[in-house]
Amino acid sequence: MENRKIPKPTIKRLAVYYRCLENLIKSGMETVSSQELGNRLNVKASQVRKDLSYFGEFGKRGIGYQTRRLQDGIAEILGIKREWNVCIVGAGNLGVALANYPGLFKSGYKIKAIFDIDPKKVGRKLQNGLVVEDLKNFGEIVRREKIHMGVIAVPASSAQYVANLMVSSRIEGIINFAPVRLNIPETFPLEEIDISLTFRALSFQINMQKNR
Amino acid sequence: MENRKIPKPTIKRLAVYYRCLENLIKSGMETVSSQELGNRLNVKASQVRKDLSYFGEFGKRGIGYQTRRLQDGIAEILGIKREWNVCIVGAGNLGVALANYPGLFKSGYKIKAIFDIDPKKVGRKLQNGLVVEDLKNFGEIVRREKIHMGVIAVPASSAQYVANLMVSSRIEGIINFAPVRLNIPETFPLEEIDISLTFRALSFQINMQKNR
Repeated sequence: MENRKIPKPTIKRLAVYYRCLENLIKSGMETVSSQELGNRLNVKASQVRKDLSYFGEFGKRGIGYQTRRLQDGIAEILGIKREWNVCIVGAGNLGVALANYPGLFKSGYKIKAIFDIDPKKVGRKLQNGLVVEDLKNFGEIVRREKIHMGVIAVPASSAQYVANLMVSSRIEGIINFAPVRLNIPETFPLEEIDISLTFRALSFQINMQKNR
Repeated sequence: MENRKIPKPTIKRLAVYYRCLENLIKSGMETVSSQELGNRLNVKASQVRKDLSYFGEFGKRGIGYQTRRLQDGIAEILGIKREWNVCIVGAGNLGVALANYPGLFKSGYKIKAIFDIDPKKVGRKLQNGLVVEDLKNFGEIVRREKIHMGVIAVPASSAQYVANLMVSSRIEGIINFAPVRLNIPETFPLEEIDISLTFRALSFQINMQKNR
């Protein structure tokens, strides 16, 4: 299976299927059809089948997919069956919120370090026991804690600086919360979250609702 | 134009096109082809054309789209050309981070109120001057402040309670940060952000990178 062949929206949907399968398995369902899965997630059944075919998973006509096997398959390609060490740069409200977000820990993402440059923040202890580290010790701590992923939670103006720091360290991928486009090598794994885009999508839904 | 006909991923992409057009206009570009727009955003040119055709916008062969006209068109359907009053329920780290997030304000989203039930949080003053309100005054404050959108930033266990409160108020749409599926009327405008899904998508990218 090659990365280039799997479109990004499919990857995102695989993560959504995974979470849905988790719930189905909890509620005792052993099989699920593409139709059922699609209905629950607002995705066309044909799209579900196409997405799952990317990694060679096929449902049986009239029976569907075995929930547990499908979940295992997705877990494997999404890299869910292992732990990931994560660091956060930026100990403002957002960085601290992420450091304390229980859902990440449950999903195998361990926040091992949080950094800032503000002397008032460095040394502060968070709810979860982590102490805010000085960004100047970034490289050393990233090596010592075997960090895999870096989260950028700084203002837009400092994001590129932090991204450069991450790319030149042993970090393998970046999640960027700063509303700015980063200039990093094209093949470097990157996910971007722009919260204002979600607000815009909601504005649109509300507008459409009113115009009906 | 009917809401039902525009798929959700298209709506999300329209918001992304909008942001890109903003940058293009700033840098003085008067026209842009679907190819260029697609390249910048990792979307196929054919997908760009399809997305824009949903609201009747067509590029001219060899010239492309007029950036300003296209941006205006998207702004109008996304409801960007107006201000939206927003409230946040949950004054934990995430709620406070959102209340202080400068990108929202710039995009026309005014955080008019933030609520909590914790007596230790109620009455606290945030950086931006907002005071945390008691959730028991929710309905009254939502009316007074003419709130349009509600953001759920509480733990998963309280999210449904808050959603019910919002649906039965004058609020027109919800953004849910709690990692739980809400049970609300199907036509009620809702956007969900599950941060752990972004981490999963990054895990996958890193895995694929290694297997090359």
